[in-house]
Amino acid sequence: MRNAFHDQLDAVFDDLATICGQVETAVTDATAALFDADADKAERVISADVEIDHARERVEDNALALLSLQAPVAGDLRVVVAALRMVSELERMGDLSVHVAKIARLRTPNRAVPDQAHATISQMAQVAEAMVRRAGEVIRTRDVDAAAELRASDEDMDRLRRTSFTELLAQDWQAGVEAAVDVALLGRYYERIADHAVSVANRVVFVVTGEYPATV
Amino acid sequence: MRNAFHDQLDAVFDDLATICGQVETAVTDATAALFDADADKAERVISADVEIDHARERVEDNALALLSLQAPVAGDLRVVVAALRMVSELERMGDLSVHVAKIARLRTPNRAVPDQAHATISQMAQVAEAMVRRAGEVIRTRDVDAAAELRASDEDMDRLRRTSFTELLAQDWQAGVEAAVDVALLGRYYERIADHAVSVANRVVFVVTGEYPATV
Repeated sequence: MRNAFHDQLDAVFDDLATICGQVETAVTDATAALFDADADKAERVISADVEIDHARERVEDNALALLSLQAPVAGDLRVVVAALRMVSELERMGDLSVHVAKIARLRTPNRAVPDQAHATISQMAQVAEAMVRRAGEVIRTRDVDAAAELRASDEDMDRLRRTSFTELLAQDWQAGVEAAVDVALLGRYYERIADHAVSVANRVVFVVTGEYPATV
Repeated sequence: MRNAFHDQLDAVFDDLATICGQVETAVTDATAALFDADADKAERVISADVEIDHARERVEDNALALLSLQAPVAGDLRVVVAALRMVSELERMGDLSVHVAKIARLRTPNRAVPDQAHATISQMAQVAEAMVRRAGEVIRTRDVDAAAELRASDEDMDRLRRTSFTELLAQDWQAGVEAAVDVALLGRYYERIADHAVSVANRVVFVVTGEYPATV
């Protein structure tokens, strides 16, 4: 029974890694759509999100089948619940990518991000993409040290978020209210993607060690 | 065994209703802090959030104990998983109230919301509060019709969100970039509180009927 449980659990984690790859594509494409003012690419991110939603449903069904058929005890039970939480967070990261893509689509043929905010928002996007990619590696390798690096990257994200606010609230902000609102919301979406990436990695740490990192 | 399961499940739902009450207080107090520019009240919302977090942990422990001791089969299993999701959403609604309180605190002794945005943001806050209160009633009464009303309120929220964007992007917006950013983020937070309230109510519908409403 134990082996059957762990084989099925591995299959659930393989699916989580696949979904994390889909989320990575969504974040990368949404960012490209944003900076290239590419309405077609934005549209593809928005329409591809349904695939992430369906993949989430499959993982949930498999995890529930696992609970039902194997009736795992306390420790293993928490692992399955952690997997259910991870898939919810991955789905949410996909939704946030859609929000980025929708801002890109709304402003085409113009770029939503004005020159004055370009460097910081571009860095936020890069940090978020790197964190999603790293979260996928953590799911695949169950590497607890890599999860700790992800938490460090989140501090970079927090710093960039503060920089972004400083920029758009500075006296010399020239790009107007609409661009400021777009930049504030984009910053919020990338920050949330990063938060979820950390949370996913922390859940992998829990699966491996039986404890959440102290910083959660 | 079936009765023991359902008694324990009722206890989990009683706890969920209590947490929803704490969230309602958080939303109401955060809104009061915002419109009265009351730093002390904002501080209390921020520091009280740890109680919601602890309550979430208790519900999770009880739900996992239920899974472990009663080993429910497919249908009941999904009900317990729905309860776990609900408590995560309630915790998140508490976090969003904290975000509102932090904007209130940041701008005191001034009010974060300028006169030009007051009516719409105030309505968003009222709709969000009413939706949280209604979600609590849905948890307590398991009233499927009340859950449908909640979904209708969410359409009011979407309409208010669009009105808010129209206001702050209008040519006659006089309150500047900082206020626009605050209003955009506050709108986002209230909108997300409302989304979660709908989701909590939809999960109650699932618990009662075995199916999620078609609009989810």
